Amino acid sequence: MTATVIDGKAFAAKVRGQVAEHVAKLKEEHGITPGLAVVLVGEDPASEVYVAAKHRQTVEVGMASFEHKLPADVSEDALFEVIDKLNADPKVHGILCQFPVPDHLSERRVVARIDPNKDVDGLSVANAGLLASGETGLVSCTPLGCLMLLRDQLGNMSGMNAVVVGRSNLFGKPMAQLLLQENCTVTIAHSRTKDLAEVCGRADILVAAVGRAEMVQGDWVKPGATVIDVGITRIPHPEKPGKSKLLGDVEFGSASNVAAAITPVPGGVGPMTIACLLANTLTACCRSNGLPEPEGLTA
Amino acid sequence: MTATVIDGKAFAAKVRGQVAEHVAKLKEEHGITPGLAVVLVGEDPASEVYVAAKHRQTVEVGMASFEHKLPADVSEDALFEVIDKLNADPKVHGILCQFPVPDHLSERRVVARIDPNKDVDGLSVANAGLLASGETGLVSCTPLGCLMLLRDQLGNMSGMNAVVVGRSNLFGKPMAQLLLQENCTVTIAHSRTKDLAEVCGRADILVAAVGRAEMVQGDWVKPGATVIDVGITRIPHPEKPGKSKLLGDVEFGSASNVAAAITPVPGGVGPMTIACLLANTLTACCRSNGLPEPEGLTA
Ligand SMILES: NC(=O)c1ccc[n+]([C@@H]2O[C@H](COP(=O)([O-])OP(=O)(O)OC[C@H]3O[C@@H](n4cnc5c(N)ncnc54)[C@H](OP(=O)(O)O)[C@@H]3O)[C@@H](O)[C@H]2O)c1
Ligand SMILES: NC(=O)c1ccc[n+]([C@@H]2O[C@H](COP(=O)([O-])OP(=O)(O)OC[C@H]3O[C@@H](n4cnc5c(N)ncnc54)[C@H](OP(=O)(O)O)[C@@H]3O)[C@@H](O)[C@H]2O)c1
Repeated sequence: MTATVIDGKAFAAKVRGQVAEHVAKLKEEHGITPGLAVVLVGEDPASEVYVAAKHRQTVEVGMASFEHKLPADVSEDALFEVIDKLNADPKVHGILCQFPVPDHLSERRVVARIDPNKDVDGLSVANAGLLASGETGLVSCTPLGCLMLLRDQLGNMSGMNAVVVGRSNLFGKPMAQLLLQENCTVTIAHSRTKDLAEVCGRADILVAAVGRAEMVQGDWVKPGATVIDVGITRIPHPEKPGKSKLLGDVEFGSASNVAAAITPVPGGVGPMTIACLLANTLTACCRSNGLPEPEGLTA
Repeated sequence: MTATVIDGKAFAAKVRGQVAEHVAKLKEEHGITPGLAVVLVGEDPASEVYVAAKHRQTVEVGMASFEHKLPADVSEDALFEVIDKLNADPKVHGILCQFPVPDHLSERRVVARIDPNKDVDGLSVANAGLLASGETGLVSCTPLGCLMLLRDQLGNMSGMNAVVVGRSNLFGKPMAQLLLQENCTVTIAHSRTKDLAEVCGRADILVAAVGRAEMVQGDWVKPGATVIDVGITRIPHPEKPGKSKLLGDVEFGSASNVAAAITPVPGGVGPMTIACLLANTLTACCRSNGLPEPEGLTA
């Protein structure tokens, strides 16, 4: 292995440290405590784990954490009433609804109900429009996290060839916009792409967000490239019966012999997501109070 | 020359014919006349020519055309009052403000003031967000026109490599989104792109929207590619003193020996823009009345 392994866990801790510092300053100098509200509908065990992690990290950086657990059969009206109250609550600067929601609710409509200025998941059409137009908004957390890792690793990305595999609204499309803003020449690939290996082989920056374990082989990677592996697939652990194991979209072993730098799975992109959620909440709080936004924590 | 020359003038006339047919049906079956309002600030001669052309073509397809000429020193408040009235007017289904506007006005703020459902230029952040999210909105006219030409020429574009040179909010970015929706593998290039010739050389679909006369040489074009030349540069006519001549971004002579199909300048993309403005106005009218939208005239 020759590649630098990008330590997303350590970097996320650093981001949380920066957020905590800024939060402390906000409290001290302005008497303001940023607040994040999480709405959870139903009792999906995985969602409960995520929400608990978000709560813990929110509190750790000194922010206020508000949790709203609603029954699985909550009506859209009742859910919207909760969101409307949070939209109007000056103590709440960020709102997210943990997905997936039960089938009778529409994720699209739920996101659209959240005030775009408090949409710290950056998933609303309004924020997608701001990003696409090069205007200031809130950016989807995982692509924002990848951007931070890339900036840290590469500094100026101008003129580099970036390839994003995957075009979801959650990740691939906003990631492409961010790389374009960094002045990369950006290619977006997806399930209909022909000669994906060849397309990937041109990338100075290769970002894979597909959800197919180890699809990207080492010989798809351009020597010296920076590889960001966003995919997460859970498989039964090959050696420990009853346990599971996470795999990325990139075959780490072979790719790390070719790339200059690469994120592992787990411990790469994953930890950045909640860190960026906190960063976005801080940013939203600063903006809503007309205060300068934190440096290095926005797109 | 071996390439098919794409006749945008004829195709635009066909689009206007389809619009006119649909308008006649709307009038007859529903008593509805689609209406387009154009706001012109100041007396820029080029803008006056455009506005006159829009007016003429709007009337020709049977729509109502409303013109609002405001003095060059109109205040933002007064301009917004006009826009607000048009937003509220049920006879008006499309609104556009002819750009450029004088320096004391902000194009961004003007566009943002127009009801997104009437933003038939498709330039608002709201419509950019809908496009970026794969939702139904109104799409910027010139990229929509290019899409129509490409669909007519190529049919299914799935898996083709598309390269868009230029990344403006007006053209390059929405064009890239549209090609992605058509399941192309999309590359966006711009002034910081390295080896632009090589990047272009991979394109099955090459769209140039830069504004640099004849920048794209024939040997940049992949044999058999479809080339859409969006650029317009006006130069003094080499043979007729006092006259001017339009040049595209592509060197037509050499490129047409290599490409399978190519749009000329003038007479290629240019005429499609107003045709698509009319198509968008019709679409907006149908949507606002809860009627099915015209087929083949939307993204
Ligand atoms: N915190 C985190 O670390 C984090 C956050 C978000 C996502 N993820 C992970 O990232 C992965 C992608 O997430 P997502 O939400 O973007 O997923 P998604 O909505 O399922 O999108 C997957 C994308 O991959 C493309 N794709 C599917 N098969 C392909 C193939 N054989 N070759 C090339 N492209 C292919 C799809 O193309 P089409 O559009 O043509 O179908 C689609 O655009 C998942 O594993 C997810 O768990 C991790
Ligand atoms: N109806 C029509 O036919 C119609 C409609 C719209 C536009 N147009 C024409 O299309 C052209 C582009 O319009 P626009 O509004 O998109 O222009 P624009 O806002 O000026 O954008 C031009 C784009 O070209 C890029 N560029 C500049 N120099 C370049 C170079 N040497 N190599 C590669 N890329 C380069 C720029 O890159 P950076 O972003 O890095 O600066 C920018 O993204 C103009 O000629 C315009 O007149 C025609």
